[in-house]
Amino acid sequence: MIQRRKISKKNTEEKVKDLGIGPKDLSKTKRIVNKDGSFNVRKTGLGFAESFNFYHYLVTVSWPKFIFIIVLGYVLLNMGFAFIYYLAGLDHLMGITGKNGFEKFMEAFFFSAQSFTTVGYGRVSPEGLAANIVAAFEALIGLLSLALATGLLYGRFSRPIPKIIYSKNALIAPYKDIKGFMFRISNKQKSQMVDVEVRVVLAIFENTNGSNTRQIYNLKLEYSSISFFPTLWTVNHPIEKDSPLYGMTETSLKAGNAEFLVLVKGFDDTFSQTVHDRFSYTADEVAWGVKFVNIYGVDDDGNGTVALEKISSYEKVS
Amino acid sequence: MIQRRKISKKNTEEKVKDLGIGPKDLSKTKRIVNKDGSFNVRKTGLGFAESFNFYHYLVTVSWPKFIFIIVLGYVLLNMGFAFIYYLAGLDHLMGITGKNGFEKFMEAFFFSAQSFTTVGYGRVSPEGLAANIVAAFEALIGLLSLALATGLLYGRFSRPIPKIIYSKNALIAPYKDIKGFMFRISNKQKSQMVDVEVRVVLAIFENTNGSNTRQIYNLKLEYSSISFFPTLWTVNHPIEKDSPLYGMTETSLKAGNAEFLVLVKGFDDTFSQTVHDRFSYTADEVAWGVKFVNIYGVDDDGNGTVALEKISSYEKVS
Amino acid sequence: MIQRRKISKKNTEEKVKDLGIGPKDLSKTKRIVNKDGSFNVRKTGLGFAESFNFYHYLVTVSWPKFIFIIVLGYVLLNMGFAFIYYLAGLDHLMGITGKNGFEKFMEAFFFSAQSFTTVGYGRVSPEGLAANIVAAFEALIGLLSLALATGLLYGRFSRPIPKIIYSKNALIAPYKDIKGFMFRISNKQKSQMVDVEVRVVLAIFENTNGSNTRQIYNLKLEYSSISFFPTLWTVNHPIEKDSPLYGMTETSLKAGNAEFLVLVKGFDDTFSQTVHDRFSYTADEVAWGVKFVNIYGVDDDGNGTVALEKISSYEKVS
Amino acid sequence: MIQRRKISKKNTEEKVKDLGIGPKDLSKTKRIVNKDGSFNVRKTGLGFAESFNFYHYLVTVSWPKFIFIIVLGYVLLNMGFAFIYYLAGLDHLMGITGKNGFEKFMEAFFFSAQSFTTVGYGRVSPEGLAANIVAAFEALIGLLSLALATGLLYGRFSRPIPKIIYSKNALIAPYKDIKGFMFRISNKQKSQMVDVEVRVVLAIFENTNGSNTRQIYNLKLEYSSISFFPTLWTVNHPIEKDSPLYGMTETSLKAGNAEFLVLVKGFDDTFSQTVHDRFSYTADEVAWGVKFVNIYGVDDDGNGTVALEKISSYEKVS
Repeated sequence: MIQRRKISKKNTEEKVKDLGIGPKDLSKTKRIVNKDGSFNVRKTGLGFAESFNFYHYLVTVSWPKFIFIIVLGYVLLNMGFAFIYYLAGLDHLMGITGKNGFEKFMEAFFFSAQSFTTVGYGRVSPEGLAANIVAAFEALIGLLSLALATGLLYGRFSRPIPKIIYSKNALIAPYKDIKGFMFRISNKQKSQMVDVEVRVVLAIFENTNGSNTRQIYNLKLEYSSISFFPTLWTVNHPIEKDSPLYGMTETSLKAGNAEFLVLVKGFDDTFSQTVHDRFSYTADEVAWGVKFVNIYGVDDDGNGTVALEKISSYEKVS
Repeated sequence: MIQRRKISKKNTEEKVKDLGIGPKDLSKTKRIVNKDGSFNVRKTGLGFAESFNFYHYLVTVSWPKFIFIIVLGYVLLNMGFAFIYYLAGLDHLMGITGKNGFEKFMEAFFFSAQSFTTVGYGRVSPEGLAANIVAAFEALIGLLSLALATGLLYGRFSRPIPKIIYSKNALIAPYKDIKGFMFRISNKQKSQMVDVEVRVVLAIFENTNGSNTRQIYNLKLEYSSISFFPTLWTVNHPIEKDSPLYGMTETSLKAGNAEFLVLVKGFDDTFSQTVHDRFSYTADEVAWGVKFVNIYGVDDDGNGTVALEKISSYEKVS
Repeated sequence: MIQRRKISKKNTEEKVKDLGIGPKDLSKTKRIVNKDGSFNVRKTGLGFAESFNFYHYLVTVSWPKFIFIIVLGYVLLNMGFAFIYYLAGLDHLMGITGKNGFEKFMEAFFFSAQSFTTVGYGRVSPEGLAANIVAAFEALIGLLSLALATGLLYGRFSRPIPKIIYSKNALIAPYKDIKGFMFRISNKQKSQMVDVEVRVVLAIFENTNGSNTRQIYNLKLEYSSISFFPTLWTVNHPIEKDSPLYGMTETSLKAGNAEFLVLVKGFDDTFSQTVHDRFSYTADEVAWGVKFVNIYGVDDDGNGTVALEKISSYEKVS
Repeated sequence: MIQRRKISKKNTEEKVKDLGIGPKDLSKTKRIVNKDGSFNVRKTGLGFAESFNFYHYLVTVSWPKFIFIIVLGYVLLNMGFAFIYYLAGLDHLMGITGKNGFEKFMEAFFFSAQSFTTVGYGRVSPEGLAANIVAAFEALIGLLSLALATGLLYGRFSRPIPKIIYSKNALIAPYKDIKGFMFRISNKQKSQMVDVEVRVVLAIFENTNGSNTRQIYNLKLEYSSISFFPTLWTVNHPIEKDSPLYGMTETSLKAGNAEFLVLVKGFDDTFSQTVHDRFSYTADEVAWGVKFVNIYGVDDDGNGTVALEKISSYEKVS
């Protein structure tokens, strides 16, 4: 972790007005950012078609659903084509041997699958204009739609997804002769993340002019960006006099229903792409008067080690 | 919406000379930027081939046209190959059963389609050197051109296109104890936009030295960039003393044929790519003495909501 | 063209020592940057394999060569497989009807092509272990290598290449009450370039301490970056007192064998990628005491036009 | 090499606390960054599945292993399908001629391969519901998995990998009237690297408060970024008074077990992507009292040349 810039002007503790989530109205009991990085806010008033992006859906849907959609599409398309062959007359499919309607339909279905995937064994083959035209276009459609499916499959497979792990708690721990708001993050994956930036934002309800409104503060970090992220980064906000946390206690933080939003941005070296991650700590997830335990070590070969299973471990400060 | 930087030096109200659209000559009645983000300016003097980019055309053309081009190309290529087989002699295609010239040509066409898509049923197969050479290259060309088609199909499908919605009007609304030029934007899609920047530029005709010339001003924004864009952003240019809008009235704005160009840039989290969007408001689309209605709410589960169907709604200021 | 920042600190006229092309040794008669953006400098001492990148070669080679390589590879691979089938014994290819060695080899070749492209008509098919194993791996190799070929084909097709046109000459033209070093650039393509940056560097031989050494200066530009690039940008370096061009004449510029290197960088909206372009003007390509003619116009529909055929046109200054 | 910015504020010599490798614990005898850019630090406590990324593995594994995995997967999948056909009854595969169990299984295997790759000669073809269903899904699975394999193949092929060569040693060489810490880098490949940035970090053990702790310093560079990287860049850290190297000797550097980490970042013009590279020099790899020999030249055509075989060559300073 080689720090690139210290506290910059961008990273000041300014009070910012609008978080796009309604400064007053959001229920105090819900967190703003969920543990998976999604936001607790819904857009209404948009038609399904307007907000739906098919690519976005297919790339982010779970694997079982994705496979189900592919298989379902494959079966439905082939049933559709089988039906067309059926309508055009199954005597136009040379080589069909089925004895009854069901068997013949299934043979049409399998012939369709052979055309769709361009296997084309040829035991059954189209005869005459109609069946041939359908078969010619089925092969085209098959190639195009299967290529789309494999494109999506590869897109899912090769999409850079950051796998940041965060310490379970954020700590108010000693830092020099003051205190700091700290948490630890690490990159689970073997791929290198470089040029990593972290931003921490505090959302807290404050009593201003008699009304209890949510205030938003950017927290100044000791380092807001590092060149490399090989192992562990203890993100640290020193609680200096101009910090919104200055003078706060565990009680006042909880009373204000505080939430610390964490934004991580970096460049993934394997995928050559920029990735983003989000996380948050609520007041209940902040531990006071403790500090993180050391998890650096050396193995027998003299290499440094970091014990990530203890990334969340902390100990009392005497 | 977590604001990253306040008004920066980049974002000053400097007067800029040249918009690349001819400072004097453009008809005052046409807007500079259309509602779809395209520019009302044409380049002339370039040959078709010089400015034409086939990839750009095929990726941005409408879906019906794209499908038509694919199908047409498929049919034409196969007709071409059928013609070659026809010239080479149809007796070189083993298994042809057609009784007349048309039927035989169609069989050659379907054989071509089966080779082109690599279905290769095999009921008809090439016999002899000439037909085999043509068939071998047809399969190669077929694979390459269909892969190109599917590449384009996937490219169209996976291209990140921002779907920003803008409030129908920009408002001159109260802001603190002065006024602000404001409009609201939201991201229609489910994919997250992060690191979003907005720039607003005012183009207005002014009478300088007796001639009526178009002047260009960058407008200082309250916030010009936000980290997240989950829901709604009320972009705001405070009309302070150094604002080109200071002292202006609805009449003078219309007389100057003012147009506010809006440029949005952000990073799409799903596609891992930077996207751009453009929009503009003319003087006629600016509402005076009104303010936006609140569209934040809370649903029964305690989640925040934003009613996007009312993104353009405003109300009189008393 | 909406200017984003004026002359910044990055853009100062500092004298820079090393251009990576040998400050003294390069022949004065050769230009540093060619008109196509390549550099007149060669690296020696690297083995072919070290500096060769197959992907880079295949993506940048001319279209005829690329097609030749694909076809040659296809023919050679199939001849290789035909030879293997030949060695394994052609009686293992069921359905072969050739009467002599050549005809049989050709049938093996065509069978190979049918397996390689997965057409698989089936009139000829493998029989027995050896032929079947070869055929099974040929289909695998065929699929993989043709996919590589189509990947390259699509990569060539979809690679963003900026098509910047530059005015044939740079001008020393009037600017306010001083002069400016100016040239005009435009984007040939229909795709939008946004966030465009231009840097201009002057390389000139100067007599310092008795030796004639090449000096490198960054030239301060009136605007070094614009948000949009719909039509035309007149890049302008005002020749102020601190400019290295201040006090220079046409003669002294030529005597110093001056060359102005132009670097353009922008974001292509269609390809969602950053592109770079390079150009240069030698002292001989600088016109003095002239100015560019106006090429802005309005068409009958009231749209602005830019006559790019006259992008290089200039006129005498009275 | 056109320098874009001189020593910036980002590039100051601040002492930075935490390198993410354990400030005290790492064995002094191991280097931090290996010559191939990997880090000598291991994460422990993560399950295999948590840190394993299949895509990352398959894209970065060596070519022989990659090919082995593809071939093995192909064989295993086809054996699995052959087994299913075997279980379903080989009499459902029409056209099988094998005389014994092994021959029949192999025919099922080859039929499977023909379906998997969609060759589908058709001499053997599925008969009846069960075999047809398996064959239909095998073709689908075959297409999808082979497309994944080719995607990975192309991904490996088209991944931008910087091929930076570094001089074998870093030198403490004369610079103006002081000294500089210098090394030379070049780009092996023909593709252009632009907007290249270099950062150099010194890790050295220092005796502070009685304990020997590793200190991390960013080294100020003469130029930390260049626009172009056509040939050679002599990276130079001037050893001024505020440099951590000021007053150091060869002995003290070795005693402190110093290591200079080099981070290179640039934009590859061919791949249109940002690439990163890492390197390091230990104290033993620093040569004192020498300077690099000139490797610029001119060939017979008047083009500049750079003799990269002598990139590491240095000579005694008198």
